[in-house]
Amino acid sequence: MKRSLNIVKVGGQVVEDDSRLNTLLSGFSAIEGNKLLVTGGGRTATAIASELGIESRMVNGRRITDEAMLRVVTMVYAGYVSKNVVAELQAKGINAIGLCGADLDLIRCVKRPANPIDFGFVGDVKGVNTRELKLLIDAGAVPVVCPITHDGMGQLLNTNADTIASSLASALASEYDVTLTFCFEKKGVLSDPDDENSVIPEIRRADFERMREDGTVSDGMIPKLDNAFAAIDAGVNKVVITNAESLGTDSGTEII
Amino acid sequence: MKRSLNIVKVGGQVVEDDSRLNTLLSGFSAIEGNKLLVTGGGRTATAIASELGIESRMVNGRRITDEAMLRVVTMVYAGYVSKNVVAELQAKGINAIGLCGADLDLIRCVKRPANPIDFGFVGDVKGVNTRELKLLIDAGAVPVVCPITHDGMGQLLNTNADTIASSLASALASEYDVTLTFCFEKKGVLSDPDDENSVIPEIRRADFERMREDGTVSDGMIPKLDNAFAAIDAGVNKVVITNAESLGTDSGTEII
Repeated sequence: MKRSLNIVKVGGQVVEDDSRLNTLLSGFSAIEGNKLLVTGGGRTATAIASELGIESRMVNGRRITDEAMLRVVTMVYAGYVSKNVVAELQAKGINAIGLCGADLDLIRCVKRPANPIDFGFVGDVKGVNTRELKLLIDAGAVPVVCPITHDGMGQLLNTNADTIASSLASALASEYDVTLTFCFEKKGVLSDPDDENSVIPEIRRADFERMREDGTVSDGMIPKLDNAFAAIDAGVNKVVITNAESLGTDSGTEII
Repeated sequence: MKRSLNIVKVGGQVVEDDSRLNTLLSGFSAIEGNKLLVTGGGRTATAIASELGIESRMVNGRRITDEAMLRVVTMVYAGYVSKNVVAELQAKGINAIGLCGADLDLIRCVKRPANPIDFGFVGDVKGVNTRELKLLIDAGAVPVVCPITHDGMGQLLNTNADTIASSLASALASEYDVTLTFCFEKKGVLSDPDDENSVIPEIRRADFERMREDGTVSDGMIPKLDNAFAAIDAGVNKVVITNAESLGTDSGTEII
């Protein structure tokens, strides 16, 4: 029997709020067995870019990453957010290690083609180095992975954090029984965006197609669900979408 | 017989100059066997702090690190410098991993007392986790260590990079035959600061005391030599002070 691995992805609104982040990290620390955290931080990057006089430009919810913005996201994701989260986890007795995709060549990406939209230094995942990740996890380390990757030729690339989480979960599904949890600001996928308690308990692929057509899900939730279904297709046991406060409970939306 | 380990510390003037950094990384990559790189980056931190409207204040060559400056050095050292160096080394076929002292609890520090000078969030090294470092090194990884550490209670701390290099070399001397090389902008310790070719080939402790008194060495070179002698006292085989271009050659100043 394969051992279990819990992969948790935490988004920007949680990362930037000290109290919610602490709740999330406490819930994460309480998870037994092997675990791995993927951290976003887009809002912090936007704030620091703004302090540096750099404007954030988004297309379809994805950041345009020119050279100046790549410097900012590398500083914020791989430096500020990652290392603060690691220090907090260490204080909770978790042997965390902050990593980006260039470290140990963990996540190799290819720069996205400039057509139809030139996103700049944005990478699409080409491969995950499960061997090195497994060495760390089996030695008792808890990887904290940030969404900076590389192309293997010396170029760092910015990669969507949900995609990183889904790619890691998919690649590690051959080695572990993987549960992937996306923590964001809502309790789950809502049937009524104005009602916090209208969490849809389960979504199957047919439901997703229908909800996309009738507009129940839109904007940032669509790529999140795409990533969730990709992980299920790749052999991930269970994908849950919930909020920081509900981590480790049975609430939230399960993707089937 | 213990296996060898080469620890190289590279300073700010090299890190901020793409061409010199590339020369250094090529020299570093060519070193056979186990190796570890410690990266500085103070000048880049000063530049980015200035862009953010944060003034750099130094006392005795050491940076005063208030909360805003801690954010900057964490972003620059652990994010921008570390991950770019890792990506460059990966491109040269070196299995680099960028780490700070909080990762795997590698370097535990204590916040420096506020008397006589309040340096802010600056840490003095209390302990090095050689077990985890050895696991990584023995697995073929090449740690790239930046001078951000932690106190074990969730607080990141800024620590002098020369001290990090000396502390790692000293702690790992029980496991490996360690050579520690400080790469900075000069070819070695100079007897005449205006003559680039006046490199002193060897310095013994008695020489250092004399040179400190007669002013041959001053400013930033004094703590560097203090760190070098501390490493020798702790059992490090060899300490060399040289420049990026001379790494791997027999030039430079050897501390005996």
